[in-house]
Amino acid sequence: MSDAHMPPAHPFDDDKLREECGVFGLIGSADAANFVALGLHALQHRGQEAGGIVSYEPSQGFNSARRFGYVRDNFTSQSLMQTLPGSLAIGHVRYSTSGSKGPTQIRDVQPFFGEFSMGGAAIAHNGNITNADALRRELIERGSIFQSSSDSECIIHLMARSLQRDIPSRMEDALRRVEGAFSVVAMTRTKLIGVRDPLGVRPLVLGRVGDAWALASETCALDIIGAEYVREIEPGEMVVINEKDGVQSHRPFRPQRPRFCIFEHVYFSRPDSIIGSRSVYETRRQIGVELAKEAPVDADLVCPVPDSGTPAAIGFAHQSGIPYGMGIVRNQYMGRTFIEPTEQIRNMGVRLKLNVNRALIEGKRVILVDDSVVRGTTSRKIKEMILDAGAAEVHFRIASPPTAWPCFYGVDTPQREKLLAATMSEDEMREHLQVDSLRFISLDGLYRAVGEAKGRDAASPQYCDACFSGEYPVEPSDQIEKGFQLKTAAE
Amino acid sequence: MSDAHMPPAHPFDDDKLREECGVFGLIGSADAANFVALGLHALQHRGQEAGGIVSYEPSQGFNSARRFGYVRDNFTSQSLMQTLPGSLAIGHVRYSTSGSKGPTQIRDVQPFFGEFSMGGAAIAHNGNITNADALRRELIERGSIFQSSSDSECIIHLMARSLQRDIPSRMEDALRRVEGAFSVVAMTRTKLIGVRDPLGVRPLVLGRVGDAWALASETCALDIIGAEYVREIEPGEMVVINEKDGVQSHRPFRPQRPRFCIFEHVYFSRPDSIIGSRSVYETRRQIGVELAKEAPVDADLVCPVPDSGTPAAIGFAHQSGIPYGMGIVRNQYMGRTFIEPTEQIRNMGVRLKLNVNRALIEGKRVILVDDSVVRGTTSRKIKEMILDAGAAEVHFRIASPPTAWPCFYGVDTPQREKLLAATMSEDEMREHLQVDSLRFISLDGLYRAVGEAKGRDAASPQYCDACFSGEYPVEPSDQIEKGFQLKTAAE
Amino acid sequence: MSDAHMPPAHPFDDDKLREECGVFGLIGSADAANFVALGLHALQHRGQEAGGIVSYEPSQGFNSARRFGYVRDNFTSQSLMQTLPGSLAIGHVRYSTSGSKGPTQIRDVQPFFGEFSMGGAAIAHNGNITNADALRRELIERGSIFQSSSDSECIIHLMARSLQRDIPSRMEDALRRVEGAFSVVAMTRTKLIGVRDPLGVRPLVLGRVGDAWALASETCALDIIGAEYVREIEPGEMVVINEKDGVQSHRPFRPQRPRFCIFEHVYFSRPDSIIGSRSVYETRRQIGVELAKEAPVDADLVCPVPDSGTPAAIGFAHQSGIPYGMGIVRNQYMGRTFIEPTEQIRNMGVRLKLNVNRALIEGKRVILVDDSVVRGTTSRKIKEMILDAGAAEVHFRIASPPTAWPCFYGVDTPQREKLLAATMSEDEMREHLQVDSLRFISLDGLYRAVGEAKGRDAASPQYCDACFSGEYPVEPSDQIEKGFQLKTAAE
Amino acid sequence: MSDAHMPPAHPFDDDKLREECGVFGLIGSADAANFVALGLHALQHRGQEAGGIVSYEPSQGFNSARRFGYVRDNFTSQSLMQTLPGSLAIGHVRYSTSGSKGPTQIRDVQPFFGEFSMGGAAIAHNGNITNADALRRELIERGSIFQSSSDSECIIHLMARSLQRDIPSRMEDALRRVEGAFSVVAMTRTKLIGVRDPLGVRPLVLGRVGDAWALASETCALDIIGAEYVREIEPGEMVVINEKDGVQSHRPFRPQRPRFCIFEHVYFSRPDSIIGSRSVYETRRQIGVELAKEAPVDADLVCPVPDSGTPAAIGFAHQSGIPYGMGIVRNQYMGRTFIEPTEQIRNMGVRLKLNVNRALIEGKRVILVDDSVVRGTTSRKIKEMILDAGAAEVHFRIASPPTAWPCFYGVDTPQREKLLAATMSEDEMREHLQVDSLRFISLDGLYRAVGEAKGRDAASPQYCDACFSGEYPVEPSDQIEKGFQLKTAAE
Repeated sequence: MSDAHMPPAHPFDDDKLREECGVFGLIGSADAANFVALGLHALQHRGQEAGGIVSYEPSQGFNSARRFGYVRDNFTSQSLMQTLPGSLAIGHVRYSTSGSKGPTQIRDVQPFFGEFSMGGAAIAHNGNITNADALRRELIERGSIFQSSSDSECIIHLMARSLQRDIPSRMEDALRRVEGAFSVVAMTRTKLIGVRDPLGVRPLVLGRVGDAWALASETCALDIIGAEYVREIEPGEMVVINEKDGVQSHRPFRPQRPRFCIFEHVYFSRPDSIIGSRSVYETRRQIGVELAKEAPVDADLVCPVPDSGTPAAIGFAHQSGIPYGMGIVRNQYMGRTFIEPTEQIRNMGVRLKLNVNRALIEGKRVILVDDSVVRGTTSRKIKEMILDAGAAEVHFRIASPPTAWPCFYGVDTPQREKLLAATMSEDEMREHLQVDSLRFISLDGLYRAVGEAKGRDAASPQYCDACFSGEYPVEPSDQIEKGFQLKTAAE
Repeated sequence: MSDAHMPPAHPFDDDKLREECGVFGLIGSADAANFVALGLHALQHRGQEAGGIVSYEPSQGFNSARRFGYVRDNFTSQSLMQTLPGSLAIGHVRYSTSGSKGPTQIRDVQPFFGEFSMGGAAIAHNGNITNADALRRELIERGSIFQSSSDSECIIHLMARSLQRDIPSRMEDALRRVEGAFSVVAMTRTKLIGVRDPLGVRPLVLGRVGDAWALASETCALDIIGAEYVREIEPGEMVVINEKDGVQSHRPFRPQRPRFCIFEHVYFSRPDSIIGSRSVYETRRQIGVELAKEAPVDADLVCPVPDSGTPAAIGFAHQSGIPYGMGIVRNQYMGRTFIEPTEQIRNMGVRLKLNVNRALIEGKRVILVDDSVVRGTTSRKIKEMILDAGAAEVHFRIASPPTAWPCFYGVDTPQREKLLAATMSEDEMREHLQVDSLRFISLDGLYRAVGEAKGRDAASPQYCDACFSGEYPVEPSDQIEKGFQLKTAAE
Repeated sequence: MSDAHMPPAHPFDDDKLREECGVFGLIGSADAANFVALGLHALQHRGQEAGGIVSYEPSQGFNSARRFGYVRDNFTSQSLMQTLPGSLAIGHVRYSTSGSKGPTQIRDVQPFFGEFSMGGAAIAHNGNITNADALRRELIERGSIFQSSSDSECIIHLMARSLQRDIPSRMEDALRRVEGAFSVVAMTRTKLIGVRDPLGVRPLVLGRVGDAWALASETCALDIIGAEYVREIEPGEMVVINEKDGVQSHRPFRPQRPRFCIFEHVYFSRPDSIIGSRSVYETRRQIGVELAKEAPVDADLVCPVPDSGTPAAIGFAHQSGIPYGMGIVRNQYMGRTFIEPTEQIRNMGVRLKLNVNRALIEGKRVILVDDSVVRGTTSRKIKEMILDAGAAEVHFRIASPPTAWPCFYGVDTPQREKLLAATMSEDEMREHLQVDSLRFISLDGLYRAVGEAKGRDAASPQYCDACFSGEYPVEPSDQIEKGFQLKTAAE
Repeated sequence: MSDAHMPPAHPFDDDKLREECGVFGLIGSADAANFVALGLHALQHRGQEAGGIVSYEPSQGFNSARRFGYVRDNFTSQSLMQTLPGSLAIGHVRYSTSGSKGPTQIRDVQPFFGEFSMGGAAIAHNGNITNADALRRELIERGSIFQSSSDSECIIHLMARSLQRDIPSRMEDALRRVEGAFSVVAMTRTKLIGVRDPLGVRPLVLGRVGDAWALASETCALDIIGAEYVREIEPGEMVVINEKDGVQSHRPFRPQRPRFCIFEHVYFSRPDSIIGSRSVYETRRQIGVELAKEAPVDADLVCPVPDSGTPAAIGFAHQSGIPYGMGIVRNQYMGRTFIEPTEQIRNMGVRLKLNVNRALIEGKRVILVDDSVVRGTTSRKIKEMILDAGAAEVHFRIASPPTAWPCFYGVDTPQREKLLAATMSEDEMREHLQVDSLRFISLDGLYRAVGEAKGRDAASPQYCDACFSGEYPVEPSDQIEKGFQLKTAAE
């Protein structure tokens, strides 16, 4: 069922893969919801469509607020934040899933809440459940009423039907039925809970500020509240935290070799976050270094496609010795789509966000460093703007391998046939984009940049790189049922 | 769990009993939702806090819009109404239940929707389920997740767990488990369904406009869409209407003697509605006539307390021969509470709504005719305003018997100890209000006014009059569990 | 110049004449703006489109808030009212003038403010300046910049150009240049000022509450703040009030015989207001009495057209002995226009506001008492509804003489050719409305009802009755220039 | 007078000087207002508080819309833009002036409009009138009513009082009375007008797109609409453009040596704009080069303070050979102030906008390159964050000379005593900021970077550099009257 609601415009480039969610939770400090608001603000790049916070305070029970739009525009109001008291709170920011029909409803916005006979629980989920359709059918058949179109709601219904007597055990029961990628932050009346799936596809970190504990998708959200980064939640680990006993670790799943999402390094995570013990910024700079080694070119200027191409461009310029310069300038005030004036403006959509620094570009051989090519539509427009400004040559260098497969683990990707790299070779793409050269970093080069000195272990890859390799560590069963074709031996 | 939301101010007198809901449904005409919006507008007096509409259109499925505030302020927008296409729609207007803690949430606003394995269904409910707490506990124990604090949600969960293969049969299953008062309007993808509980406590009528069928709480909602009043849905009847076969009648419950709510005649229903074949206006005028016979008084002016006391005052004036006049004038622009100026204003709250027509009142012996006395707070303030304006005497005549018991069948009543008549005799009330005389119509007088020539049949009353008599036709089991004391033999 | 703004829908009958403004001011009590908000709420019937308040507090200077919509929806917010501190404030509610093209702008909303060399002043004006176009042209020629399309703004520009050294004297200068009808409430940093034009066409009254003084369009606005009604400001009088010296009276104009607007008695003022020493309600009841004498008819029911026809209907019923009854019921929740469902509804606009009490009407000969007939569109629809409900006969009795001329003194009237009575005789109107009989009260009858025992003094009428008689006490010079034809000797 | 309005939060650093306005106008293409909206969007960095557009269309006259907030949030709505038809439009974006008491009112938002006897005109002004107080006093004395607190309104009142018969001539009359800095874009019913003050302090450029002409504060606003940059409007020039005759140039003022604002190069203008024939980006990069020559330091990392320090940091790194890196990362989702959680967070305000890239900073000797130091509050917080992250040394290099004097020509500067450089020497500032070294570029170095090979001509400076030198090319007479002390010979 769809509820009447005006969808927010997407302010950002739809020619990117997009992380679909960020999660944050805190226990042990008064006004926990204010910390959560700050944490979600720092995670806003992981989901701009909507956000929600649930808090618990003994005399007032659970309270919740869910809003469309940015965290800064909603969860900064005194009157709203006063409705979210207590020293325990969790929150969520989200994107819509590309597959869903129609606009997101407010009831699709997490955290989800369920009242069980032993008390209530709220959960927020980053990731995607690959057997959600089958689970939903089964649950409806047995009498569950779904309130949202979100796959994540399955978890709370599975918990409701568990026969365990306490909520963490019910959550273990539920998550054992679930396939796919998930980093979950949840809360009961007294506990903050964090879980990562056995492969650890999506990130989740633990922090400490004063006597309080925090869980967050990325370390940048710990920084904003002044919390110290303690460690990652490990793949397959469940931590249960209460104010008295602190952090207790459980291992509800059968151990497997981890497969962290390598694209978090390339694009999703903020450059000031730390993954494991590696700086995301440094990894991206190193990708630029590798790229300059793998695909050098004689040119006058290394120019990042802002802002995500910047660290790799710095690395490329440093390694190649070619001067680095801001040939493209970003408008800080991006937003809704303007109405096109009668007189057609070429590339108007791109001009709202980017402008070429003509005086710098004119007459130069320019290397454009971008993080990825998805549909290729933006790359083509940028190339045209650069040529219009009088560049002598345009060379694209891409800080990730060709994106040839959709992600089913919590990332918004177009259908496979819309991915440029799914239907074209590197050379065909160069032809299509009409640039002087186009090179992607190799999969091995990427692995080296993230610290795997020997590159990718083809027999047992160290990361989930399905979007590049087509090798899916968890079978996307709902998608296969809908007709998705796995990679064949021939490919 | 409570969701952050600013509660709307109640523009109306909180010294009245309040009907909690109105329902409306229509099948068989394009843009059914527009008819529903009109019908709900005509039923706005039955619930001013919020309203919702669900419609169904084959290519777009079920659509829903739920909003706080008046129907006229929400369901008049072209952009909203376009999201509710189709030739089948139902709607609901509601008040908050006094018993609930905290403000109403948007998720408490009906119609409720459930997706079953054989398709979706939406329901809107007027009434109250007296065993809802017990049902909810049982359903949660078995794994249902409730999304609202509304008792009505039990129905949709009971339907989800029914083993019947079609939705009307699941609804029968569900309603047989439910105790209390209910008039339900529901819809599937192809059917409009109406049901009244076996006692027929709350109203529900059937109308026809062109090829379309309508269900409504009152006939005034048929008038506004130009529909013809066909008949009442009978107590214990379920009608299932589809476009092809028209109205089919079922009898899912064990037959019982009907007990329609007599207070619908006294106050809840609009004076231009017809109940059975009686005009509500005429009944109220007749109450005034009976009252003038039962409790005459020598005076100069019969003055209604606007607007609900008007028909009885007209009847009282006609019967007594004492001139009728508008001694109290109502401000049409009532609304939110104003900020009190520093200098205290006596009876400011009342003055926002009512003003005394001093020139008419001065020096006169005034009979004030009001529909009921609940807490007595407003009666007291009105009396003071009348005396301040120079009235020589003030006589209250009340068009209902003393309200001494709470209603548990879908009416918002204060706790018993807050009811003036629960703790005082008529004489003590007169003393408390400090008026020259105070008389209520007798229970028999009221029955005569609604057409029962011999008055009330004490052995087997023709109506539900629990608020006056303390005789509850359905045991309020949830309330008893919470400590409510039924009337004892001694009372 | 027009500023982008969505015009509010007019919730009320556009088949009525409409007062265009109400004014209120208070000096001498902390938080004067809160009193003003209450006063404007009581005057809301005089203007529903927008309202404004200006206050003065020594440390913060003048503050202002102007808003579209009802007083209750704007000036009840703590955050807004805190921006209007001080013990001196004035306010205004307004309608748009029918003649203006396009929607009202917020800058057209009064009070208007001007900064002069000796300090600021704010004014609020009820009435209409009949030489405003000429004044505006002259002022623009001399270099004044108008910020609104309102005629009232001329006053503040004339004040700015006066050579007087104090603001009250500048206001005298300005108002001596102005022709037409005006009741002005104004304020400086220390004074509250009230003025009525020499004919006293529009009302203005003085009240007292504690140590504070209030000025208001009607006494009902004194009642709501608990103020005592002191007296009317007299025609041609200017009162200047400060906290220390109280009320000082000036006579800036050449004395003339007063010509108060008789339509204030008929319709504009609230029935609970007092004009001079006469109750408006009692006058209207008396009109009904006169009407029953002048135009009796044999019938079964006297039914008011709610709500404005009610007092006259009570008087008619009392005088004629025919029973009084509510044959038409008003929906209290009127508002914006609903979207018409596909299937056409007859008289939908009227049904949103009124419904017929079919059970009372059926088979009866009905006398409908209404306050006035302007375009006749609503009268016709009401007649149809009454006949559809089965009335045997319909007789209209109108509590004012035929409205045959537009008002140019602050009342929203259609152009002359749109007035039914401008083009038809009483008999032709009866024919046009297709009713069994139609009678208006005579002009003499109306004068008798307002207390002029000998009726109208044709040589020197006691009231302004231009809308009935075509005799304009102030020449409407702007209108004549635009082509308006005064009454000829032949008419 | 102040009108009740909630001030928008300033999302940006209040430790910067801020340009107060941007202007844009277009003639000769249908839907000119849509172009203006795009142009203002590109100029949003020049004023974020509010924006306004006026358009003219023969059949509908002048239309206007003024809104608080970003252009992208207001002037992108179809319903709003449809109210602004026509092929001629102008617009304005603005900041509040720091000197004004209280929040900006919507009536302070430009363009301003005046109706003259020969027709209307609208004007938008970038700059500041240094004799506005005196002009305003004189105009009020003579009977003008000001509607805003804006200095710019003087221009329209002076025009209203001119005896010239056409609007351009009236504008010449008015501007000859005005002292200070102004770039004005104005329109009549048929003409687009652009004027720069005789010194040309503020920028204004001319562009062409198809048959249409555009005027804009910066060339980046021409780029966004695909217009070609034709030339600068020259200091002291007035251009009058109509659809038929194109651009006509006038010289209403006595010629003077130009003094363009040098801070436009340093900070105000966007890096992708061109001033004269110089790229702003290239100038800033060159400042970094000069700075590296003037003030070299042995270090490990050159890190820009984002985003305005970036070009100079690139230049500094290039010249010094020290690696360039993003040690500070900016949060793209800045916005309103969050509520501080109970547990104090150090430097929370800064953390909302910036985060340190700890892995890059740790153990390094860091050169921070910033564009300017105003109050020094942000510099201090950034230094603390860098040290907290483990930097070994912190060296500040500032891309402008010490800002020791307020600007009175349309830039928002704190009072002189709040400027760090007004009260401290460079060495005292280093001490105050507790950094290892602090160096500003010299005034001569800055002049060299903007292309003046011989540096500043002390006898007759080529630019307005009053904020650095204290030498004001136009006497700030209003300020002197309020007590501002000009630089003494001793200083």
